[in-house]
Amino acid sequence: MERSGDSRPIGVFDSGLGGLTVVRAIRERLPGENVVYLGDTARVPYGTRSSETIVRYARACGRSLEKHGIKMLVVACNTVSAVALDVLRVDLDMPVLGVIEPGANAAVAATRTGRIGVIGTASTVASGAYPRAVSARATKAEVVSVAAPLLVPLVEEGWLEGEVPRLVVERYLEALRGASIDTLVLGCTHYPMLRAIIEQVADRVLGTHARVVDSAEATAIELEQFLADRSLQNARSSNGTLALTVTDRPRSFTEVAERFLGHAVGEVEVVDL
Amino acid sequence: MERSGDSRPIGVFDSGLGGLTVVRAIRERLPGENVVYLGDTARVPYGTRSSETIVRYARACGRSLEKHGIKMLVVACNTVSAVALDVLRVDLDMPVLGVIEPGANAAVAATRTGRIGVIGTASTVASGAYPRAVSARATKAEVVSVAAPLLVPLVEEGWLEGEVPRLVVERYLEALRGASIDTLVLGCTHYPMLRAIIEQVADRVLGTHARVVDSAEATAIELEQFLADRSLQNARSSNGTLALTVTDRPRSFTEVAERFLGHAVGEVEVVDL
Repeated sequence: MERSGDSRPIGVFDSGLGGLTVVRAIRERLPGENVVYLGDTARVPYGTRSSETIVRYARACGRSLEKHGIKMLVVACNTVSAVALDVLRVDLDMPVLGVIEPGANAAVAATRTGRIGVIGTASTVASGAYPRAVSARATKAEVVSVAAPLLVPLVEEGWLEGEVPRLVVERYLEALRGASIDTLVLGCTHYPMLRAIIEQVADRVLGTHARVVDSAEATAIELEQFLADRSLQNARSSNGTLALTVTDRPRSFTEVAERFLGHAVGEVEVVDL
Repeated sequence: MERSGDSRPIGVFDSGLGGLTVVRAIRERLPGENVVYLGDTARVPYGTRSSETIVRYARACGRSLEKHGIKMLVVACNTVSAVALDVLRVDLDMPVLGVIEPGANAAVAATRTGRIGVIGTASTVASGAYPRAVSARATKAEVVSVAAPLLVPLVEEGWLEGEVPRLVVERYLEALRGASIDTLVLGCTHYPMLRAIIEQVADRVLGTHARVVDSAEATAIELEQFLADRSLQNARSSNGTLALTVTDRPRSFTEVAERFLGHAVGEVEVVDL
């Protein structure tokens, strides 16, 4: 049977730049898919806000992407995935994939001792979404969570290397010293931009080598299966397009996006939600 | 003539913790005044948002304080002072004092060479409010502004000392190296919490000693005259009360507030705007 394929784009959104880590992972794994991205840079960070506010922002982002005729939505933000997935599914009447379940699945697959560390925003940590998702899959696993609020502003400011991010990461990971974790989940899609530094610091501070689970990567892996299960794959296997939209500060977004994705990104459109 | 005095409180608000620097300065200078403070900790930082959004948030804050029967409003936030003072005056029908004019006055009084540096949020810098206010007072003065977006998250996280804030400040002040300024305005009310570090780093990076102008302190000085001009002073000269309200995270607010004000602050009330 000839596969006709579904060429409509996949919508991806995050509070700011962080979701680009999910975009990069999707494009590496599914290079034929068209992607339209929305970074809500006017209202970043979400991670310190109340659930009601986050839900309100998430609905506005979902509706903005809906106008691009997307076939499904990837919520590339742990904070939103923790509190707003169900609302978005009802609102948009389309498949919605978050990042927490894939991250929890990957962590359960990676751990041997069952002791899993999670770093995330204040809101993701307070929601208890990771401990819940992990214990639904592995009842004996234990999750130790640490909120790391400064990492998102650091990434948004584009300070991805050097002494400042190293010291900031060090200070947060200190809280996991002695927790005997063997797996560390980057429970915020901004954090993979600091992955190299986080891995270095983790080895030193934790005293053992912890596997780092990147919820962005894990999401791209599940997305492939998700599209296949619903016959939503595009027929093309390469040259997928990428359209980027933001709610504020397109210039600094473009700069970090190009550095992070490793190629020019063309014009970044500013949208008003 | 016996002065009866006006014992109604002064309303003070900021996007988060920063306005406490204004509160401290007011209580040092006017210890008999009653103060009610609102920190909009649920929506901090304002400094990266659009003017429309900032005006909307500011009105909600003003209306919340109005319910406390305040006699006037001090906008303890440079970002809001830059874009929303007039709207607030009309909205609330009461005297409103911002922090930018006092800061600009103090800078003009302090400078000898007429070369003034300003550090502030992205929004305050983009608004051009300081160069405008300075040139209205001293046509030959020149203002060089630098946006320092990470300083607000640092203060909100309570990281006020040590290597991380020092390195962050260093990186921002590097942009003023060679600008030959003799006066540096802390154009954000969060920054005085980092004043010691900023002064140390400025001396080293700028190569000369620049006077540091604290817009919080300058505002308290102008407030004294402002109250006198309008016969709004309280008759008491000590034991003014302080009531603190926030929109989110009262516990971490209390912690930083007590450390910063140097005394216990009692219960911090959470309000919904």
